[in-house]
Formats: sequence, structure tokens, C-alpha cells
Amino acid sequence: MGHRLEPFFSPAGVVLVGATGDSAKLGYGVARNLAQGRFGGAVHYVNPAGGELFGRPVHRSLATVPDPVDLAVLLVPAAAVPDSLRACGERGIGSVVVESGGFRESGPEGSLLEDRCTTIARRFGIRMLGPNCMGTMDTHTGLDTTFLQPPGPVPGEVAFISHSGAICAAVIDWAAGRGFGISRLASLGNQADVTETEVLSVVAGDPHTRVVTLYLEGVADGRRLVEIASRIDKPVIALKVGRSAAGGRAVTSHTGALAGRGAAYSAAFRRAGIIEARTVEEMFDWAQALAWAPLPAGPGIAVLTNAGGPGVAAADALEAAGVGLAEISDQTRSRLAGMLPAAASLANPIDMLASASPERFAGCLAVLLDDPGVDGVLVVFPPPPMFPAEDVAGALVPVVDSSSKPVLVTLMGERSVGRAAAVLRAARIPDYPFPERAAGAFTTLAGRAGRRVRAVAAPLEGLKAGRVREILARARPGEWLPSGAVAEILTAYGIAVPAWRPADGVEAAVAAAERIGYPVALKVDSADLPHKSDVGGVRLGLADPGAVRAAYPALVGAVEAALPKARVRGVQVQAMADPGQDVILGSTSDPQFGPLVMFGSGGIEVEGLEDVGFALAPLTDADVGYLLESTWAGRRLTGYRSLPAADRGMVEQVLVRLAQLACDHPGIAEVEVNPLRVYAPGRGAVAVDARIKVTEAA
Amino acid sequence: MGHRLEPFFSPAGVVLVGATGDSAKLGYGVARNLAQGRFGGAVHYVNPAGGELFGRPVHRSLATVPDPVDLAVLLVPAAAVPDSLRACGERGIGSVVVESGGFRESGPEGSLLEDRCTTIARRFGIRMLGPNCMGTMDTHTGLDTTFLQPPGPVPGEVAFISHSGAICAAVIDWAAGRGFGISRLASLGNQADVTETEVLSVVAGDPHTRVVTLYLEGVADGRRLVEIASRIDKPVIALKVGRSAAGGRAVTSHTGALAGRGAAYSAAFRRAGIIEARTVEEMFDWAQALAWAPLPAGPGIAVLTNAGGPGVAAADALEAAGVGLAEISDQTRSRLAGMLPAAASLANPIDMLASASPERFAGCLAVLLDDPGVDGVLVVFPPPPMFPAEDVAGALVPVVDSSSKPVLVTLMGERSVGRAAAVLRAARIPDYPFPERAAGAFTTLAGRAGRRVRAVAAPLEGLKAGRVREILARARPGEWLPSGAVAEILTAYGIAVPAWRPADGVEAAVAAAERIGYPVALKVDSADLPHKSDVGGVRLGLADPGAVRAAYPALVGAVEAALPKARVRGVQVQAMADPGQDVILGSTSDPQFGPLVMFGSGGIEVEGLEDVGFALAPLTDADVGYLLESTWAGRRLTGYRSLPAADRGMVEQVLVRLAQLACDHPGIAEVEVNPLRVYAPGRGAVAVDARIKVTEAA
Repeated sequence: MGHRLEPFFSPAGVVLVGATGDSAKLGYGVARNLAQGRFGGAVHYVNPAGGELFGRPVHRSLATVPDPVDLAVLLVPAAAVPDSLRACGERGIGSVVVESGGFRESGPEGSLLEDRCTTIARRFGIRMLGPNCMGTMDTHTGLDTTFLQPPGPVPGEVAFISHSGAICAAVIDWAAGRGFGISRLASLGNQADVTETEVLSVVAGDPHTRVVTLYLEGVADGRRLVEIASRIDKPVIALKVGRSAAGGRAVTSHTGALAGRGAAYSAAFRRAGIIEARTVEEMFDWAQALAWAPLPAGPGIAVLTNAGGPGVAAADALEAAGVGLAEISDQTRSRLAGMLPAAASLANPIDMLASASPERFAGCLAVLLDDPGVDGVLVVFPPPPMFPAEDVAGALVPVVDSSSKPVLVTLMGERSVGRAAAVLRAARIPDYPFPERAAGAFTTLAGRAGRRVRAVAAPLEGLKAGRVREILARARPGEWLPSGAVAEILTAYGIAVPAWRPADGVEAAVAAAERIGYPVALKVDSADLPHKSDVGGVRLGLADPGAVRAAYPALVGAVEAALPKARVRGVQVQAMADPGQDVILGSTSDPQFGPLVMFGSGGIEVEGLEDVGFALAPLTDADVGYLLESTWAGRRLTGYRSLPAADRGMVEQVLVRLAQLACDHPGIAEVEVNPLRVYAPGRGAVAVDARIKVTEAA
Repeated sequence: MGHRLEPFFSPAGVVLVGATGDSAKLGYGVARNLAQGRFGGAVHYVNPAGGELFGRPVHRSLATVPDPVDLAVLLVPAAAVPDSLRACGERGIGSVVVESGGFRESGPEGSLLEDRCTTIARRFGIRMLGPNCMGTMDTHTGLDTTFLQPPGPVPGEVAFISHSGAICAAVIDWAAGRGFGISRLASLGNQADVTETEVLSVVAGDPHTRVVTLYLEGVADGRRLVEIASRIDKPVIALKVGRSAAGGRAVTSHTGALAGRGAAYSAAFRRAGIIEARTVEEMFDWAQALAWAPLPAGPGIAVLTNAGGPGVAAADALEAAGVGLAEISDQTRSRLAGMLPAAASLANPIDMLASASPERFAGCLAVLLDDPGVDGVLVVFPPPPMFPAEDVAGALVPVVDSSSKPVLVTLMGERSVGRAAAVLRAARIPDYPFPERAAGAFTTLAGRAGRRVRAVAAPLEGLKAGRVREILARARPGEWLPSGAVAEILTAYGIAVPAWRPADGVEAAVAAAERIGYPVALKVDSADLPHKSDVGGVRLGLADPGAVRAAYPALVGAVEAALPKARVRGVQVQAMADPGQDVILGSTSDPQFGPLVMFGSGGIEVEGLEDVGFALAPLTDADVGYLLESTWAGRRLTGYRSLPAADRGMVEQVLVRLAQLACDHPGIAEVEVNPLRVYAPGRGAVAVDARIKVTEAA
């Protein structure tokens, strides 16, 4: 695949179709950038009007463009794009950037035109980037197929791939302002053919790229993105916009309601090892650190400063982000004490006081980096009152260079620290204007250092998938399955349910209760009532036949009063479960990423407490660990104060089985076990209540 | 008070003691800044060596300095400061900035020296700023008593008051970089005399100051800060550093443990109407918006952009911050449709597409501001590909100027948007480089618009404070009160407790249970067991004498086994409370801010769930509202799905009473009611379990 995408960044020759000398047109901008940039390959122009442009002949048609030419850029009116694509195919050009607009983004007619383009591209085996995109850049080959105003980015190690073309100019600008270079840039446009995942793959293979950043508005094939990104060894940072507007689907379960807030993207990024940024600022702050600094070997960071307050702010931010502050050894303290005035603070953060000279900065940094308990240093300094900030920067550089530990700098200020920033950046030492942002970057380095790639476990054996398929085959699309079917499906996947029997009348309920043994619960069984307890459809703790006889009509009456149109199948008589720890588990199907598993604190209050986590199904060990560690529901399973420990191992089992169930059966839209009651270690867990929704007809 | 602090910013005449021509010394920097700045008053220098400096004579002593002189700046060796202070007093100078270091910050000897200075200052009625500070600036009087390198800040409307001197240079730099001016700046140093609260008061009174920013490392008198700040009508934004390191006290209750994380500062800021920033970047982002933009009349913000992705990111950020997106009216939509291409998006965010001209930006902005449902507009634009960004900025200015609604701009980029930024800033239109930061600023504007200043309610009547004082008078300092005393104290303040009786043996317990009525609970009563249930010290639901007889020895045995040294007073026999909603309430005493009330989800899991809020005692209506709205425990009191509503009014009552209890009795260190069981509306609430700790001996 890569060989036909590589020409988007390093072609042997490029032709611009739609080149023009009219500087008000975009085709002029691309012609200019191709001619005046550092691109060393062949550059050709095509325009039916012919003529000359930037010292080159303008060909009247693609047919007369000489070899080599393996990339075409189209900037012709939308209606002319299909013919131009065909001409590219006939000329044997396999890679085409379509920058013209007027396609899917402009309405139904544009969609039809886009489909025609895709068909033509497929027929000729053309890989098409766009349409409606801003083009590509490679600062190392010098290629610039965009129409953006010069100057372009300086060569560097951070790649940028974006669904938004409009943001590209700003990104180039920000990178220049922050002092780091770009390796490759790609604007994806409508993604009629080439997707973000393919571009990610080819950009990650570029030897000049050390970090890839992704600005995503949506994802074409979520599972494919996860698969490809998982195999990439370089850090990938993604920002997903449009999370809050993600809703829109009608959701009927807690799992679905809670998942509507971007949880699927976060789960997918976690699985794929993609670092998730919340803002563009974070994305580039982190990219700069990952591109330039080594990873810390452990979590102990020392803060070195000439200013108390900002040093404490840095420590606050590191602690808040979960990165530990290093314990400074006694030996290091006494070495520091020998270099610093008595009023200096030797605890972490180390405050050298405002009078610290460049030599003192360098000396203390060297001592700290020498301490085996220090895994990295965050130097925080506002402009020292008595020394130029660039002298401090200059003194730090050789110390940083001779260490294999990461050093990040918070250079507080703006105008007056420009020269100091330039000194640091020339030495590839990341600098940040605020301690909190440097702390965020350190957190990312530490997280990257601690990452472990784990494979999904092999599918479980002994699950009765055939039985589940039979039940689903009989179900109506979109329905909530009858209670009995739910119990059978969970049982088929090794998830325990309480003893139960169906009953369609008072005396049948009493008979069922006698067989099960008292006390029992009665639950209404209706496809129209996913939240039974909301309408009085559940009666608990019925201790004898009299209680069952009294409860049955009350239950049916309450349901009928609340929802007269609900189709009631009868009731389910169920053994009362013993007390234990309650958790909620669920699965839903995300349109981009497929089955998604939820775990957290359950009961009816799950949406209020929001103590939940999400992971893609099937689950890896790391996912299970995340679900149990990131929620209070999971953490308390090991016991807390007088709350005894519960069977955490069984919860892990049930999570994996539920995920497997969701993956094995696309016919299942949603599962919710609420609560799963967890008993003492070794005593297992039981799905006290559960519901399963069948997928709507396609 | 103000009249003696005002000379720190607008003196008639200032004298620098320690002026020197040696440019390596700080006294040179201050002399330079006083001479070369725009300060219009008298400037004098003192140095025993005499001579001339910056065209002025250097007096050999303060005695010969002519009138007017109402401010002195001292930059002499620490040991010489007491004599200089005395000379100031004798010369009749009432305001002195001590910039010299070598005092409390340098150890015990420095502390003694500082105390001597304070004594001298008091004797002469001198108000002293510092020692160990960076001085003051007033850009409108032109005074600059700092030794910071020029250029100083440009005149503006944002004041900056800081415990950290080191950060001042960076702040001046950042302000310049962000394009806003400073009105007054003060570095507080060791605060031996003048505190942040006094400086806040005088700075807020400055007519040029529209917004005050505070960089706090700690607070000298928390209650005083709250009192003064509450009366200030201008926006005050504070950043408190050192939150994570706040702990250190031994804490024994949930309330105390949870309060150790900066909760007192947040509660104090909320009460005082101080806006709390988490980073310096936020502080100045918000200050710029508050200084320049009008407040929105309602919560409906429209996002106008030429770029889909960043527009959506802005909408995400606004929604995440709880600011609503405006509903665009049909009329506005059709007006916009008439100005925009078909592919434009008329929903909020309004995406005009990348081709939008400056005129289109202006026209659409005017239409949006004209919509009564739009309370403000966030314009988001990366550099347009076909037009200079400054032309867009220029087109926006008259539209913004002619509207009374706030307009903030996200101008995406850095180098290439400099001229556009300058155009906006000249028109006092706040600009931000990222949509999320602009959204944060809008959130602050909306929050400020919605603020309501509420007084603390009058103290409740009919509380038996005398009875509580009697009980506390008999208690040992630092002890957990006996259960009976706890019940009596709560009852004295109108907080209901279950029927209870003490018992010191099995048969006494049975007799007590007979009087109370079954079922009962047994609870161990020990000063050494604040968490009774952790050690098996609670037995619930005992239904008859046999159950009590069996439970008593088991309970005592369990406690003795778990904590052999616990002093057990006996047991408390208590009526079992009916089921209801459980919440936790507590109070603790913060060293800076005094009594602090906690409310949230209770049970033993309170520290795991962290569903809690804090407010300063006594409580205002706004505080009670905050506690109930910011926690799930509070929100669910109005009912949720099948969970019936509970007596929210009684919870409000109990909160106010508990706060009053904590305020009335400094002898109470901590109170924790866990749980307060809340019954149906009108049915009240009962403190099922509670404990009270007596304040340690001073």
C-alpha cells in the first residue's frame, strides 16, 4: 500500500493541473510553492491555455508532460475533475491530490460527482487524496503541494495529519512560534479514497518523522485505525474534535447514554497506544517533548528553580498529573548545600533563590542528574534579575547534552526570553512558557516510558456461541429480549444468573417460587421496559406464597398504570441474591469502533455518579486493568476499610466474557448487567439483573 | 487604611535609600527605573557616599531630603534596614518598601531581624511592604520602584499582586506578548506588615484598574481576605500555588482527609466572589476578557468560523465548560443563508467556509449579534487562504464596537497573524490563539454575569449554645466525644438523632433496647475509635433480647481483638433508622479560613467516590445551593428515576445548623455526620451516626 502513497510526499515528478498566473487563484499558489520551494524533483504545469509560468512551460494537456511524473495535483473546477482524473490514469499517474472543492461537502450533487471520481480512480488504480483538501508537504524532500502563503514550516521531526484543511496554516505558524519543525503535513479533505489511517501508516514510516500528530474530526474505519496505529512504534498524538456533538442516536441503556460522550474514541486511542490530547496546544507541547527529549527511566522528577512560587506550581502540576516528585538523596542534598546559600530550599522543588547565576543553574542541574533517584529534571526560571536569561540557557545546554535523562525547561516570559528560547531550541531542549504546560509534557514522557503493548487474549473456549445464535435468529430486530433469553445467553457465555423461572399468572408464580425456594423476586418481563424498576416492575424479598400472591397483581397493575401500552410477557420469578458488592457492566456498539464495554458503579445511580470506564471489545489485560483501576467500583473490589474484598478475579472473567459475547454476535446491540453482584474472593459473581437489545434491522 | 497604602503607587515624592551607580547592584536598577520612567513626582536618592546619579544629587542622609517625600524604598544590607526604617520614621515617611533580602526567608536570625523591623515600623506608624520584595509599579502615575529591566509594562487595566517576586518580570513580559496593559503591580515579599488583603483593597480602589489578579502562595488572614474581597465590585482572579503540598496535619476524619487538597481556598474564593484560575495562562486569558469585553446578558453563545474543525472544537469547549450554544433563530438562519454559499453550515457553529471574505465575516457577525437569542459571539479563524488576516480583523472591529454584546476572537496562528492581533487589540477585542482558551474566557464572562452576591443568613435562633459550651468545657482537648455527648450537641442545634441510651453491660443493653423498642443497633463508644465499623464495633438490626445478648460480647470482643488499647466506654443502644437517602456532612477547621463544611455522598466510601463539596461556615444560600447542586448526593435528593425524592429542605437546615455549630464553638475541631439519613419530603432527616472531635490544646 505504502508504495502508492509515498509519492504524496516524495514523488519523482509532480504535475499541477490547473496552474495559472492569476495570483487571485489557488492554482497560482500551488504553482508558486512547487516552483519556489526546495523540491528537487521534476515540476510540471498543465493548463489548456498553455504559456509559461515560473520559468517553466505550461503544457496544454497531461499527455505531453514528460517523465518522470508520479504525482498529480488537481486544482480545476469540480465538474472538470473526473476528466482530469481519467487523464491522469491514462498518463499512468498513480497518485493524485484533488484540492478542488464542490464535492460531498457541498450537497447531494457534489456527492454524486465525488462518487464518479472515486469510480474513475478505482478503475485506473489511482490513489486519490481529497477532494476538497489543502494538499501535502514534506520538508525533507521539499515538496509543497499546498497553496498556503510562504514561508512554509522549517524541516523537523513532527508530522501533522488533519481532517481540517483550514487549521494547517495555523499549525505551521504555531510550530514556527514554538520553535520546532514539521516533517510531513497532510490535509485529508473528504477522504473519498485515501483515509487518515493510510496516511498515518505512510507518514509513520518516514525516517525523518519522530512523532505523528492527528487532528481528527471523525474516523472512516475505527477498527482499522486501531489496528494500524497499534503497530506503529513512534508516538502518535491525536486530538478528536466534535466529541460533545457525538450524540444523536437514540440511546436506551445507561451504557449507551454514557458512551455517547466520546468514550469510544478514548477507548480506541488507549487500545491503539495513541496519546490523546484535549487541545491543539497540548498536542504540540507534547509532540515537542517526545521529539526532542529522551524518555525517563522512572517516575521521579526533580524541579530546579530560582523562583519559589513557580517551582511550587510546577510541583503541584506534576503531582496533579500523577507524576511523582523525586526523593532527593542525602548525598545530593549535601552537594547542593555546598553550592547554594543557606536560605535556598533543598527539598524538591529545589529553590536556588533569585540570585542564582548561570553557573549555579548548571552546577545544580548536573548534581541532580547525577542522583540515581532523579529520572528527569524540570528547570523553571523566570528571567533572573541579575543575569541575561540566555546565559542561563547557554549554561544548561552542555549539562543536558551530556545526560541521558530528560530535561524540560519552563522559560517564563515572552519578549525578554526570546534569545534564551532560541539557545534551548537550537540544542533541542523543549521549553514551555508556563510550569503547568511543562508538567503536562513531562507526564506524557513518563506515560510513554511506562507504556506496555499487550495483545488481546485468545478467544475463550467452551462458550456456547451456537446457542446464542439460535436465540438471536428467533428475535425481532430492535427488541429487548425476554428475560429467559437473556438468562440463557449469559449462561451460554459462562456468566452466572440467579435461579429463575418464568410465570404467566399468580399461581404459576407461586409454583415457581416454591421450586426456587424463598425469598424470591418478581420482575415484569416486557420488551418495552428496559428500566423495569422505574415503573414499579420489580418486587423484591417475597418470603412466602402470600407475599407472592399479593405482589403479583400489584406489580402488573403498577406497570399497566405507568405504561398502558407496554406488552407484558408475564413475570420472571427469581431467587433473591445474597448481599455483596454491586457493579455495572455493559456493552454497546459504536458506529466507528464496534463493540465497546463499560464497567463501573451500578444501580440506578450509574448516570449520576459517572464512575465508569470504557474499553474496546475484545479486552486486553491492560483494558481489564484500566477498567478496574480507573473506577471506584473496581478499586473497592480489593476491599476498603470495613468493606470486605470481593471476587475481583471473577469480575475480570465476566468482563472478558461479556466483551467476547458482544464481539461474537453482531446481532446484539446492547447488553447491560446491572447489577453484577460480586461475592467474597472465590465465591464468584451473579448477574442479578440484565437486559439485551437486538440490533435494529439494517 | 487606604491613605497610607496609596503612596506605594502614587506618592507625591519617593526616596531610594541605597541608590548606587554600580550597575551590578539592585539599587542601581531602582534608581534607573525611578529616574527614567514617567513618574511625575519628586525622586530623591540617599547613599552615605553622596555624589550624583541620573542627574540628581545623592543625599548623604534622609534628613536632608526635601519635601515632598511620602514613600521610601530601601535597598540596603539587611542589617542596616532597622536603622534606615527608624530614619524614615524620624523623617516622617509613612510608607516604606523594603526590597532587601536576608530576613525570615533566610533562617532564624533573619526572622529576629524582621521582627525588629516590624517593631520599629509599628512604633513610627510606618506601613512596610516587604521585606524581600520586588517593589511596586503604577503605569498611570509612572511609578516603578522595582529593579526589573526595562521596558516595563504598558499602561492598562489589569492589576497584578503577587507573593512571588520572581514571577513579576515574566508577568510583565506575558502581558506585553498578549497585548494588554498593566495598571498596578505589587510584589508582597515576606508580608511582615502589609498583607495581600490590604494591597488588594487599595489596588481595587484604583480607577484605572478594572480587573485584579492575585498570585498567592499562602494567605495571612483568610477570613479577612474573604471579607475584603467580598466587598470589591471589580473582578478579582486568584491563582493559589502549593495546593498539593497543603497537607501535613494529621487528619482523622473523612472531612479532614478530603479537605486537605485546597478545598478551603476554593471555598473561600467562591464565598468571596474571587474567580479561581488553575494556571497563570488562564488568569491572564480571563483578565483580558473581563477588562475589555462587556458581560453577556445570557448563556447563548454563537460560534462564527471559516473553518469547520476549529469551530467544532470551540463548541466542544463551550459545552464542556457548561456555557450553552445559542439556538440560532429561523430568521437569522435565513439572513445568513442569503450571505453564504450553499455548502456553509447555518447551525451553531456557523461555518462560512474557507472562502469567507472580510465583508462576509463582518456581515455574518452583525446578523448574529442582531439575534436576541445570541448573547455573545466567538469568532474563530485561522488565516484565510485568500485574504490577509488583518483585513478580517479590521472588518470585525466596527461591528464589535457597535454592539453591547461580548465578542471574543480566536485568531489561530502566531507569526502570520501578528498584524491582525494588533488590529484587534487596538480596538480592545480580546484574542486567543486556541478555541479552547477563548471558550474558557467566555465561560468566565458568563460566570461573572451570573454571579449573585449573597449575604450569610442571620444566625439561627433557639439553638442551645450554652449546653454545648458546658459539654465542651468538660471534654479533654483533642478527644473524640462520647456518643452521648455527640447526640446531645446535635440535639442542642436541632439536628435529630435516633432514640438512644448508653449501656455498660449486656443486661443494661437489653434493658435499654426494651425501652427504645426493637430492632436496635449496638455501637461501641470509645474515644479512640473514630471509625467504629472498621473494627467490628457496630451491630445492626438486633430484633430481640437474644440478639442483643449475643451481639454485645461479640462486639466487645471484636473491638478488643482489633485494638487492644482502645478505651471502651461501653456501648450505645440506638433505634434502627428506617431506610432513606444517605448523605455525609462534616465540618473541619482550616488553619487559614476557619470552619469549613463538607457535604456529599457518604458511607464508608466517601473518600473513594469523592462526590463532595466544601463551603465556608457560616453558609450563605449560595453556598447551600452549591453544595447540593455540585454533588450527586445533593442532586439526587430531588429524586432520580425510581429513587424517590427526599427532604431536601431538611438537608439545607441541617447544613446551616452544622455550620453554625462549627462557627459558634471554636472548641469543636471536627464534626462528621455519616450518614445523615434523609426521609421523604416533610419527613425530616436523622443523624444515624456522628462523631465530634474536641480542639487540641493550644
